[in-house]
Amino acid sequence: MKKIIMLLALPFMLLANESNKDNNDTSALIKKTKESGLNHIPEDRAILFELINKPKNPLTEAKFILGKKLYFDSRLSKSGIISCNTCHNLGAGGVDNIPTAIGHEWSKNPKHLNSPTVYNAVFMEKQFWDGRSPDLEDQAQGPIVAGPEMAASKEHVENFIMNTPGYLKAFRDIKEDADYKPTLKDVGDMIGVFERTLITPSRYDKFMETGDDVLSKKEKKGLNLFIDRGCVSCHNGIGLGGSMQVFPVYGKYKYADIGGFEGDKNKMIKVPTLRNVVETYPYYHNGSVKTLSEAIKLMGELQLDTNLTDSEVSDIESFLNSLEGVKMPVKYPILPKTNYRN
Amino acid sequence: MKKIIMLLALPFMLLANESNKDNNDTSALIKKTKESGLNHIPEDRAILFELINKPKNPLTEAKFILGKKLYFDSRLSKSGIISCNTCHNLGAGGVDNIPTAIGHEWSKNPKHLNSPTVYNAVFMEKQFWDGRSPDLEDQAQGPIVAGPEMAASKEHVENFIMNTPGYLKAFRDIKEDADYKPTLKDVGDMIGVFERTLITPSRYDKFMETGDDVLSKKEKKGLNLFIDRGCVSCHNGIGLGGSMQVFPVYGKYKYADIGGFEGDKNKMIKVPTLRNVVETYPYYHNGSVKTLSEAIKLMGELQLDTNLTDSEVSDIESFLNSLEGVKMPVKYPILPKTNYRN
Repeated sequence: MKKIIMLLALPFMLLANESNKDNNDTSALIKKTKESGLNHIPEDRAILFELINKPKNPLTEAKFILGKKLYFDSRLSKSGIISCNTCHNLGAGGVDNIPTAIGHEWSKNPKHLNSPTVYNAVFMEKQFWDGRSPDLEDQAQGPIVAGPEMAASKEHVENFIMNTPGYLKAFRDIKEDADYKPTLKDVGDMIGVFERTLITPSRYDKFMETGDDVLSKKEKKGLNLFIDRGCVSCHNGIGLGGSMQVFPVYGKYKYADIGGFEGDKNKMIKVPTLRNVVETYPYYHNGSVKTLSEAIKLMGELQLDTNLTDSEVSDIESFLNSLEGVKMPVKYPILPKTNYRN
Repeated sequence: MKKIIMLLALPFMLLANESNKDNNDTSALIKKTKESGLNHIPEDRAILFELINKPKNPLTEAKFILGKKLYFDSRLSKSGIISCNTCHNLGAGGVDNIPTAIGHEWSKNPKHLNSPTVYNAVFMEKQFWDGRSPDLEDQAQGPIVAGPEMAASKEHVENFIMNTPGYLKAFRDIKEDADYKPTLKDVGDMIGVFERTLITPSRYDKFMETGDDVLSKKEKKGLNLFIDRGCVSCHNGIGLGGSMQVFPVYGKYKYADIGGFEGDKNKMIKVPTLRNVVETYPYYHNGSVKTLSEAIKLMGELQLDTNLTDSEVSDIESFLNSLEGVKMPVKYPILPKTNYRN
């Protein structure tokens, strides 16, 4: 746990420090932002740890190390060449930057869904675009066995682990049971732990936490607009997203037919996080909106019945830039040798 | 250069130290091994640097950093999801562990060729199974624009670099030319530099360099057999492979029809390195041999007209285990933001 807490602190240390402090504008805007329902990633390590920890599957260093390997291990897939990181690339904002995910045998996602970012996914109330999964541990199992994604069977995953001594020992050590047979659920639990640590504090967080004036005038104007225009009614909390909401509220989404996804049974769709949104293009659940400015403009129309002017869009986009966060350094794992052969 | 030399030293430091030194058997075997044409990776950093450096494209830290990013950057591919690391996975012995490479739109390699390892590829005399490429810089360009692999066009690559400010600046700094327009060849040059550093010293190297008795009795028996039986006639040098040789010399390779690859115009095929061979399964140019023991047995028949006994195969396999090397720690790169859109 100590090591994880240290790891969590790293991105904060990499954030630039600024000395301009606490002019009146700044403190008023911070107060307004907090009251609007927005929140920030706390720099206090103990508080942050509590926030991302899950009592049912506590974060430990051993789970983190194992989960990281599994996250990068393409041998979990049926083909042997697709890993979690293929679609949720930690080097590219936690996404694949293509409209819809491509998986096993070059299948596209059947509903043309766009790969959501894994960074800060821990702050989402639910997982998947239709919110069908309660947490990262549960979510992580899905793509491994989904036909158009990693296409593995439960048996493949479990046999692979049983025949990979380095993994088997790690699971058994964690379970404190020398005869334990790891399951797909256990694999999800480990990957979930690793994913919980993928948080990316940004200049916005620094601003909110310390009052340091690290946002530009335009970014602050954008933040004001973001609140005043009502974007914050869905994009709120620490994740600036993560709840289920009706989409669209007004009119028709012009790319609705691409994939035909309509959300959960109540036609609710998960609000994506805006953290690192400059990196996570293309946008919307079906990845059909290419630019951030179009995404903002359309959101105004579809969710707020508002025509945002070009200058407003530009200011809001500017604020969204400040949400680009620092990523935790990740050592690319050397995968344990396996005796499993397909 | 200083930093690269430090990086190169890291794997040696991670190799276990042993105190048993220089009994007679050991020194005699080292002498015999050297005389047989085998060589080892020198621990002396300056000598090693000279060995992997290429005067026409000298190793520098700036090129290394840029080349590493490009190596992991799937945006170089047409689809956006295939990088060098997809088939030459640094976490998995530098290969994909599948019989034949899978690339763009799930194409298999047209000749059913198996992805060779990138680790220690710097020690190969030529690149590709038919040896058509003289060095890593040249080789690295190939798969990026090969239809069944990354399927990019030269224009895609060059436009992508031009529209990725972080890359453009890095190239221009390296070229010391503020207006420079990087080419596909430059991309290959940078990736080549990164790949040159991917060497993996092993217990075998420690044994040869220091005389420390870090090989087991069985491994030494295997090394003796490897020399006496003639394996060393092709698998020699530092790379334990890397030259072009006739294949097969005797009889018919039973999986020859899979892909129908016959080598270069003289029916010569590049001898693969045996370094990390326990990790680089499946074997042979078309990846049709599943186990290392079968690979050894078959080699005896096809190249040496010899029937190796099971016990000889087992001893040689044991020696090959000692060639598993320590890999340089690689920080997974955060890729520079791009304005390029497909």
